[in-house]
Amino acid sequence: MKTRACVLHAQEDLRIEERDVGEVGPQQVLVRIGAGGVCGSDIHYYWDGGIGTIRVSEPIVLGHEVAGTVEAVGEQVTRVRPGDRVAVCPSRPCGKCKFCQSGEQQHCLEMQFFGSAMRKPHTNGGFRDRLVAEEFQCEPVGDKVSIGEAACTEPLAVGVHAVNQAGSLVGKRVLVTGAGPIGALLIGAARVAGAQEIVAMDISEAPLKAALAMGANVAINAANEPDRLAAEYSADKGYFDVAFECTGVGAVLKQAFPVVRPRGTIVQVGVTGSADIPINALVGKEIRLVGTHRFHQEYAVAARLIREQRIDVKPIITQTLPMERAAEAFAIARDRSSQMKVQLSFAD
Amino acid sequence: MKTRACVLHAQEDLRIEERDVGEVGPQQVLVRIGAGGVCGSDIHYYWDGGIGTIRVSEPIVLGHEVAGTVEAVGEQVTRVRPGDRVAVCPSRPCGKCKFCQSGEQQHCLEMQFFGSAMRKPHTNGGFRDRLVAEEFQCEPVGDKVSIGEAACTEPLAVGVHAVNQAGSLVGKRVLVTGAGPIGALLIGAARVAGAQEIVAMDISEAPLKAALAMGANVAINAANEPDRLAAEYSADKGYFDVAFECTGVGAVLKQAFPVVRPRGTIVQVGVTGSADIPINALVGKEIRLVGTHRFHQEYAVAARLIREQRIDVKPIITQTLPMERAAEAFAIARDRSSQMKVQLSFAD
Amino acid sequence: MKTRACVLHAQEDLRIEERDVGEVGPQQVLVRIGAGGVCGSDIHYYWDGGIGTIRVSEPIVLGHEVAGTVEAVGEQVTRVRPGDRVAVCPSRPCGKCKFCQSGEQQHCLEMQFFGSAMRKPHTNGGFRDRLVAEEFQCEPVGDKVSIGEAACTEPLAVGVHAVNQAGSLVGKRVLVTGAGPIGALLIGAARVAGAQEIVAMDISEAPLKAALAMGANVAINAANEPDRLAAEYSADKGYFDVAFECTGVGAVLKQAFPVVRPRGTIVQVGVTGSADIPINALVGKEIRLVGTHRFHQEYAVAARLIREQRIDVKPIITQTLPMERAAEAFAIARDRSSQMKVQLSFAD
Amino acid sequence: MKTRACVLHAQEDLRIEERDVGEVGPQQVLVRIGAGGVCGSDIHYYWDGGIGTIRVSEPIVLGHEVAGTVEAVGEQVTRVRPGDRVAVCPSRPCGKCKFCQSGEQQHCLEMQFFGSAMRKPHTNGGFRDRLVAEEFQCEPVGDKVSIGEAACTEPLAVGVHAVNQAGSLVGKRVLVTGAGPIGALLIGAARVAGAQEIVAMDISEAPLKAALAMGANVAINAANEPDRLAAEYSADKGYFDVAFECTGVGAVLKQAFPVVRPRGTIVQVGVTGSADIPINALVGKEIRLVGTHRFHQEYAVAARLIREQRIDVKPIITQTLPMERAAEAFAIARDRSSQMKVQLSFAD
Repeated sequence: MKTRACVLHAQEDLRIEERDVGEVGPQQVLVRIGAGGVCGSDIHYYWDGGIGTIRVSEPIVLGHEVAGTVEAVGEQVTRVRPGDRVAVCPSRPCGKCKFCQSGEQQHCLEMQFFGSAMRKPHTNGGFRDRLVAEEFQCEPVGDKVSIGEAACTEPLAVGVHAVNQAGSLVGKRVLVTGAGPIGALLIGAARVAGAQEIVAMDISEAPLKAALAMGANVAINAANEPDRLAAEYSADKGYFDVAFECTGVGAVLKQAFPVVRPRGTIVQVGVTGSADIPINALVGKEIRLVGTHRFHQEYAVAARLIREQRIDVKPIITQTLPMERAAEAFAIARDRSSQMKVQLSFAD
Repeated sequence: MKTRACVLHAQEDLRIEERDVGEVGPQQVLVRIGAGGVCGSDIHYYWDGGIGTIRVSEPIVLGHEVAGTVEAVGEQVTRVRPGDRVAVCPSRPCGKCKFCQSGEQQHCLEMQFFGSAMRKPHTNGGFRDRLVAEEFQCEPVGDKVSIGEAACTEPLAVGVHAVNQAGSLVGKRVLVTGAGPIGALLIGAARVAGAQEIVAMDISEAPLKAALAMGANVAINAANEPDRLAAEYSADKGYFDVAFECTGVGAVLKQAFPVVRPRGTIVQVGVTGSADIPINALVGKEIRLVGTHRFHQEYAVAARLIREQRIDVKPIITQTLPMERAAEAFAIARDRSSQMKVQLSFAD
Repeated sequence: MKTRACVLHAQEDLRIEERDVGEVGPQQVLVRIGAGGVCGSDIHYYWDGGIGTIRVSEPIVLGHEVAGTVEAVGEQVTRVRPGDRVAVCPSRPCGKCKFCQSGEQQHCLEMQFFGSAMRKPHTNGGFRDRLVAEEFQCEPVGDKVSIGEAACTEPLAVGVHAVNQAGSLVGKRVLVTGAGPIGALLIGAARVAGAQEIVAMDISEAPLKAALAMGANVAINAANEPDRLAAEYSADKGYFDVAFECTGVGAVLKQAFPVVRPRGTIVQVGVTGSADIPINALVGKEIRLVGTHRFHQEYAVAARLIREQRIDVKPIITQTLPMERAAEAFAIARDRSSQMKVQLSFAD
Repeated sequence: MKTRACVLHAQEDLRIEERDVGEVGPQQVLVRIGAGGVCGSDIHYYWDGGIGTIRVSEPIVLGHEVAGTVEAVGEQVTRVRPGDRVAVCPSRPCGKCKFCQSGEQQHCLEMQFFGSAMRKPHTNGGFRDRLVAEEFQCEPVGDKVSIGEAACTEPLAVGVHAVNQAGSLVGKRVLVTGAGPIGALLIGAARVAGAQEIVAMDISEAPLKAALAMGANVAINAANEPDRLAAEYSADKGYFDVAFECTGVGAVLKQAFPVVRPRGTIVQVGVTGSADIPINALVGKEIRLVGTHRFHQEYAVAARLIREQRIDVKPIITQTLPMERAAEAFAIARDRSSQMKVQLSFAD
């Protein structure tokens, strides 16, 4: 069987090509993909040919935020049946290394992650009409939500995993800096986790609007009110129990230190090369700065939150284009001031 | 009653002066001080007139690492009696603020800390022959250890508190960067806490020798072997479960990231203004970087570890001078390549 | 100033009496009580003259679940103003003992708790028209909810505190045995804390109906389906991550062990004398059985959850009678098959 | 190749038989066993024909506390070489089930545990001259300790795992009830983990003597001083931060509740059918009662503690008999008043 696929050959060289779908093994599932979200890493691969030291050095099918409908299942498959709608988890940990055997699969030494150029050969992703996935990658999403909403499972899982790094949020005061797709979905996750009060900060109105829609109580536009955060939340050594830093901008991370209370937590979600942080504040206030990377069991949790509509992800989907217009989608998605999540549609 | 005291009037202007001892209240204790350790903050006050934004702006009695013998007690005192040898805890939290009511007294909003210029008026310290302390500040140290060893209770408490930020160390692999007095005592605390293997790194031989004496398994002289740490401990995403960074040097902190395993902890003990840290490693490996500040209940724990000789602190005491030669002591203590802890002796 | 009060003199001897309101100190607040919930302990005091070894040995004003409107405030009060509607926290920890200084105020050695016969003299409670409370006891509840809903703050705080004993509930499977007022409110708290799936079990339909209204996914009537819990949830060493045992019945607690997964948690909420538990299951599955007692900072959290209507407590309020009919209320409240929370109304 | 083995055919029917050693696979190791400790479960199997519902229903080689010398290794083995002395871990988790993939291998759904009659067919154990083990089961123990000491790795691992259930013990007050082999070794582990003070209680002098040798500060003979524990350690709601209950006797577990402080932990190590516990104390003091079952990564930790002589296990080894006298050893080991660990010696 053949499928069309979005293949990146080099920087700004994206082609729709025909590929073999491959055999469906006994524990595998054939999924007709319906929607796929364009992520920051896809954008970097397309426009920059890589992310930092990770370079696209051979053709790679992009895409790791996908969902679709089961078309066929291997003989040993029990979790899903043809016709089921599923979100497809992009990660395939080896199951054998010391991290997999410790429940820390996101650090697997042999991780295969959809649409990632980290390993050689690169791992192909999910921007294609048909895909063979492992049974354990398929999470049922039911019939109440659109397939585009289901395709938000992956970035929501990132948010849920980030929330899990902070311990219980019940009754806690939370700051979220950066309200793009990850930040906004994380706000939804923090709200579900019992956060008492959520303050979102960004420099554009679109993400802040999404942040409020996802459950933030207060939205600060740092472009217009650069001093507001420090002015309102620094008293008595800091207001917030937890901050989630989603911009990956060092200067923003630095702003979290005065407003997080002693023994509070800053979860670093956004990635950057390096950043200058105030060690005196980290030490003097005993702040815990902790990184968060992808997810593991949170993928199933996120799928269920979407399926049961406990989190409505629609506010973050801003545009959907057919696969043939993928290059255009990658251009649109680049504009963070107006766009949140741009998705591709497949298979018609 | 009068007492001599080491009073810093301004940068490099230290005077031995006579002061009133003050009344002994019903819950207070009069202590004849026997020994006091010179700490990095004392040295900064003396040579630089302050630490960063904290400035010595009025005369201040220095010293917060002191121990001595009880001379008299107030009528309600039950924990100690005249003749008892005690280590005197330098911190007096208010007991009422939200931090004190949460068991986080080290963040007290109204903290009085011996020999600290942080507040105005400054809080006088313990470099004097006689001192009136609160009963709760006095920890019995028994008769088996010298009064100089007892005066190491405070820096050991810093080490124990740092160790407590890392969770249980049983069976853990530990890195300690910077093996000055705090780092070396922390090694003793980590050993008592069950650390399986301790690697110490410094750039001088004296601290590394102390580190081995305190329980380190391996000593790396980074001046001679700058690449050894990375070469030996980076495989499979990093060797150490926990790193204690005691230098306060950004470039050293940075070296911890490749050798700490995913989901490992870096406890930042040393203070500096700010430092550049590799956010991509922090995020990608989900490393937890956590500050540690002073101590609270660990003071009593440290006193008992010294009293029961479960930690032998003698390897870190390098020299003792009488109070009259305090200025000389402050000069000697500055030389980190040869000196660990320099102490003053009092009251004869 | 005078106030009417519900005073229990002895078993089944409840009288409406006039009492002095007392002075309003500088940090105190005069509250006109609007509603007060009848709790299990009130019922025991009334019908049994005590609970276990705690006996009512002198007249005591009952009631610890109260809310009302501020009438006057002391000169130093800043948190509330006359006209504000508040829930009144029944606990007054001493603030000085070792537990208060550790953030464990619920274990205060000198706790004063409204309407409790535990200490001598007994601590009078809140079933009266007017009450002088400490400022720190008054939590604003806004104007959107009824004063009866506000009076549910206390039992909801018990539920939130219980939830906090289990760590984060995000994505967790939860069992709640016993769906009376505490169990039902706890279900609301567990839902707010991110529980993925909640199974409630009781032997009456009224509580199970309330459980579903508060957010349970499944309701099991153990009177009709005594084997269902074990049959559906025991596979693979147990289904639930956390169980909250709210009945205080040993036989029910015992049923939790086969259905809680290895390393899962059972939070014991209900009180009884002693109970027989399967040590082999506790050990073999490494189950954590942990008690939960009242609340501390959770009172403010609960007040806010009600004020912001994130938890709708109306499903648990089944009847409201004026204070004059308190004895009748105590009779009605005794019937657990039809009644959840019975409240008294005050102040004409 | 052939080996002699201790095979239990039925209650009190133990035979020395010849068995095939089996092939040494590429990742396997041939070990010449030197010593094996007789455990409580072996004793139950021998004298009672089983433990509770677990019955010996077919011939089984007993023994799960063994150590010896490597004779040959498979071609892929890298951790050990012929001539190395090793402790052999008795557990072989499947590596694939949900527990193994969560780092909770001790709850493996397909666990193979040496000398255990829990599964059918039973898993044969290590009481034999030669044994083929997986490479991952072999922990080097060096040349400084006797092979009998090395054979204490398994029960020490049980103690270390129990200690790990209590969080950090640094500065903590610890009670250990029952000072048989597990309790005594656990005391050593608690001491290594930083426990500040350890009180041991038993009803015989031999175990109490061993307890003191392993690091207990106080030994209480409850047969002679039945009221001492409660009398000395109940004030202010309880003295101990953590209790380890190693007797498996309900009446002893009950005694822990008054002497453990609010929010303290009781780790239940000893197994019994069921026991009556004071729920009012568990709830009112918010005590955490947690079971502990075997070990996982602690086996390697224990091997290293013995190898490096950080714990001296000699005080618990009371007698060693050659394999041929196994039945006699099982008789001797039954006498808990005089015996701690009885071991068998193998291989000429």
